[in-house]
Amino acid sequence: MDKGKMAEWLAQGSVAIPKLLLHHYKRLGLTEVEFMLLLHLHSFIEEGIWFPTPAELAEKMTLTPSQCMETLRKLLQKGFVSIEEQVDEQAVRIEKYSLKPLWEKLVYYLFVQSANEERMERQEEEQ
Amino acid sequence: MDKGKMAEWLAQGSVAIPKLLLHHYKRLGLTEVEFMLLLHLHSFIEEGIWFPTPAELAEKMTLTPSQCMETLRKLLQKGFVSIEEQVDEQAVRIEKYSLKPLWEKLVYYLFVQSANEERMERQEEEQ
Amino acid sequence: MDKGKMAEWLAQGSVAIPKLLLHHYKRLGLTEVEFMLLLHLHSFIEEGIWFPTPAELAEKMTLTPSQCMETLRKLLQKGFVSIEEQVDEQAVRIEKYSLKPLWEKLVYYLFVQSANEERMERQEEEQ
Amino acid sequence: MDKGKMAEWLAQGSVAIPKLLLHHYKRLGLTEVEFMLLLHLHSFIEEGIWFPTPAELAEKMTLTPSQCMETLRKLLQKGFVSIEEQVDEQAVRIEKYSLKPLWEKLVYYLFVQSANEERMERQEEEQ
Repeated sequence: MDKGKMAEWLAQGSVAIPKLLLHHYKRLGLTEVEFMLLLHLHSFIEEGIWFPTPAELAEKMTLTPSQCMETLRKLLQKGFVSIEEQVDEQAVRIEKYSLKPLWEKLVYYLFVQSANEERMERQEEEQ
Repeated sequence: MDKGKMAEWLAQGSVAIPKLLLHHYKRLGLTEVEFMLLLHLHSFIEEGIWFPTPAELAEKMTLTPSQCMETLRKLLQKGFVSIEEQVDEQAVRIEKYSLKPLWEKLVYYLFVQSANEERMERQEEEQ
Repeated sequence: MDKGKMAEWLAQGSVAIPKLLLHHYKRLGLTEVEFMLLLHLHSFIEEGIWFPTPAELAEKMTLTPSQCMETLRKLLQKGFVSIEEQVDEQAVRIEKYSLKPLWEKLVYYLFVQSANEERMERQEEEQ
Repeated sequence: MDKGKMAEWLAQGSVAIPKLLLHHYKRLGLTEVEFMLLLHLHSFIEEGIWFPTPAELAEKMTLTPSQCMETLRKLLQKGFVSIEEQVDEQAVRIEKYSLKPLWEKLVYYLFVQSANEERMERQEEEQ
């Protein structure tokens, strides 16, 4: 076992998942399989692959490419992912997946939940 | 929206998932749902809850408590999780889930894969 | 080199640092050494050591115990860390370091910065 | 305070630092300031900025550009960082910082430490 290999493994690093998302994804309407697909998407994007194909996703997952496509379609439709168009340095139009809608949904959920808690506390005080 | 709430959210932090695991869990024989249950287990353990119940896990997941129990049973049987017995400060015997077997499986997989690659390289050179 | 050792290393996991903090700690008035001491504090707390001694901190850092004490004192005084008193399960009073003030300072800074940007945008539009 | 801003903050994500590195950087011969510069380097590289200038680093740190340059020079000389040359898609030669030497140093340290522990255990058994 050579040390270079181990250094390579360490160098690969980690993906950090906010505990807020881990604790609340179910309330946002995500299943575990959808969560995992988002995680792979996030990991691809971080590595500079902005628009992974269903086949690329399926290679990492226990889903078939067509199941990945179907799950992606659902995530786009439910508003967890969006596709952004950009023009790159060579003036070529490229498409990118963006997880911004996911974070917006999470923040919105947290705000509503926090407002509800405040309202309930006020009601308890008034009684 | 008060700032204290936002600070609380930030303070919750993140769970870091090694990319090695994210890239290879499928080869280790894990499904997405099993991966997510392991992730929740890891998060509970980090918060000092060493032996979460199926009901506690089910609260975070889209599974029912009995589905969580069944998935846990499978993970124990397939050797991704183990249960360790310890004696705490008050001499009470406590049980803890441990993810050590998961990391051992991952390391074993990486070693075998790396040995195979080396063998193939040598064969190519010899030809 | 045995595989158990490597699995142990992998099992140690990572500490996740929000990029927001990494990008702005300087503006909050933190030096690199103070940042690192906070990072060690955070890591100790995560492992259940709520009130590490200057000697325990110094073991991980290039500082002496008295330099750690002095840095801790400054962080408490500048309001990045606080000490919380709690009563544990055996009714013993224990002290804990808390990084909540750090997150509050970060949120406050982000709010002020964002308000300033909005004001400047409005001024530009009015001209 | 608009929710879009908060979603943006969440979207920035985190940098994951292996606890192995946090616990042993001192033994590897790194100071806290050097550690922080490596952390910024890592963060720049992850964002696709492969060769940040001393001025770009200094903007995030409490160091001046020339202090950053001096620290970088030391890290290169002590073998924690290397500069790799690559040819990009437009056949332009580009330079990249690489942290691979850091991980190699860490792995080497862990191997030596683990070998020492084994030897000491054997010696104790023999007595």
